[in-house]
Amino acid sequence: MTPRLLEVRQKVLNKNDLAARSLRDRFQAAGVCVISLVSSPGSGKTAFLERILTILGNQFRVAALVGDLATDNDAKRLARSQAPVKQIITGTVCHLDASMVNAAIDEWSLSDLDFLFIENVGNLVCPSSYDLGENARAVLLSVTEGEDKPLKYPSIFQTADAAVITKVDLAEAVEFDRAEAYRNINAIRPGLPIFESSAKSEDGLEDVLNWFTSQRR
Amino acid sequence: MTPRLLEVRQKVLNKNDLAARSLRDRFQAAGVCVISLVSSPGSGKTAFLERILTILGNQFRVAALVGDLATDNDAKRLARSQAPVKQIITGTVCHLDASMVNAAIDEWSLSDLDFLFIENVGNLVCPSSYDLGENARAVLLSVTEGEDKPLKYPSIFQTADAAVITKVDLAEAVEFDRAEAYRNINAIRPGLPIFESSAKSEDGLEDVLNWFTSQRR
Repeated sequence: MTPRLLEVRQKVLNKNDLAARSLRDRFQAAGVCVISLVSSPGSGKTAFLERILTILGNQFRVAALVGDLATDNDAKRLARSQAPVKQIITGTVCHLDASMVNAAIDEWSLSDLDFLFIENVGNLVCPSSYDLGENARAVLLSVTEGEDKPLKYPSIFQTADAAVITKVDLAEAVEFDRAEAYRNINAIRPGLPIFESSAKSEDGLEDVLNWFTSQRR
Repeated sequence: MTPRLLEVRQKVLNKNDLAARSLRDRFQAAGVCVISLVSSPGSGKTAFLERILTILGNQFRVAALVGDLATDNDAKRLARSQAPVKQIITGTVCHLDASMVNAAIDEWSLSDLDFLFIENVGNLVCPSSYDLGENARAVLLSVTEGEDKPLKYPSIFQTADAAVITKVDLAEAVEFDRAEAYRNINAIRPGLPIFESSAKSEDGLEDVLNWFTSQRR
C-alpha cells in the first residue's frame, strides 16, 4: 500500500463518517440508489422531488425522507406522489446526519426500493459537512436566488455531484444571467454536471431523471 | 429579589451571550443603534441594505458589517452607498457571532455612527441562536421562497423583532399568497411587525425606515 493510500485509509473517521459508512454499506447491499438534495430554504426542493417521485415512480420503486426543523408539511405534499415518505423533524438542528437517516429507515425494507431520495433541511452551509451514505448529492439553486451563490457558499457546491438550477420558468422575470451562473458553478467545481428544470412546466426534468438513473450501479 | 428574577439572573450565560452583552453595552454607550438582518441565501438582504444605507445615509451616519463564508462581493456592492462597510469572511462557519462583530468594529469609532447594520450569513437556522448585541433583528423573507417558511424555520422568526417580506415586485409572478404568509408569521410570532418591500421599485421602504429610526432610543 502506497503512503498516499495509507494516509487516506488512516484518516480519522468521526462519528458521522462511521455512521455514513455503515449506511452506505447497507444501501449497497440492498441495491438501493440513494440521492440527497440540498439547497437554500425555498429553492423548490419539495416541488422538484414531488415531480421526480411521481415520474420515476412509474418505472421504479421509489421512497423519500424529508428533513425539516418543524412541521411534516413536506411529507404530506410528497405523499401525493404515492411513494412512501417519512419526515425527519430535527428540532433546532440545521442539517440531517447519518444517524437520523438510519433511525428513519428502520422500519423500511431497503431491498424493496430502487431509489431513496433524501431531502435535507433548507440550508446552504451546514449540510455540506454531513455524509449521509448517499450515492450522489444534488445541490439545487433557484433562479431567484442570484447567480453568485456558488461563490458565496462554495462548500456545498464542492461536495455536490450535480447542480440543478430550479424555477427556470421565472428566469426572465428575475433577469437570471444563465452564463454567469454556469461560470460561477464552474469556478467552484469545474466539470460539475449542471441541469436546468422547472417543476411547474416540467421543462428539463427528463435530463435530471436520466442522470439519477445513471447513478444506479 | 423574587425566585423568578433570581432564576433569570442566574441563567448561565455562555461565551457568546457574554460577548454580546459587552457589545450591547458598548453600542449603548456610543449611542449607535444596531440592526441585524437575517434570511435565507438569496432573499435580497444585500439589495435591501444597499437601498437602506443610501436613503438613511442622507440623514444619519450609517455603516454596515456583512457576513459571508467567502468573497467580499457584498461589501463591494454596499460600498456604492458611500457608507463605511466591512466584510466578515467566516470561512466554513454558518453564522456570525459576537466575537466576529467585536473584531470587525475594532478600528471604527462607534460614537461617530447613528446606525450600524449587520447582515448575517444567509441561513434561516443557525443565526437565530447568536445574540450580536443588536438593538433589533429583522428577518427577511422573499416572496419567491414560499409562504410556509415561518412554520418550517420557527426559531429565526421567534427571535426576530420584525419581518420584512422582500421582492414584492415578483409577488404576482410567483403567485405569492400574502394572507397565508401573514397568517404563518403570526402563528409563530403573534404581533410581530410585518413590512413589505421591493429594493427594485423602492415600494414599502419608507415604512421599514420609519421602524428602523423608531428603534433608536
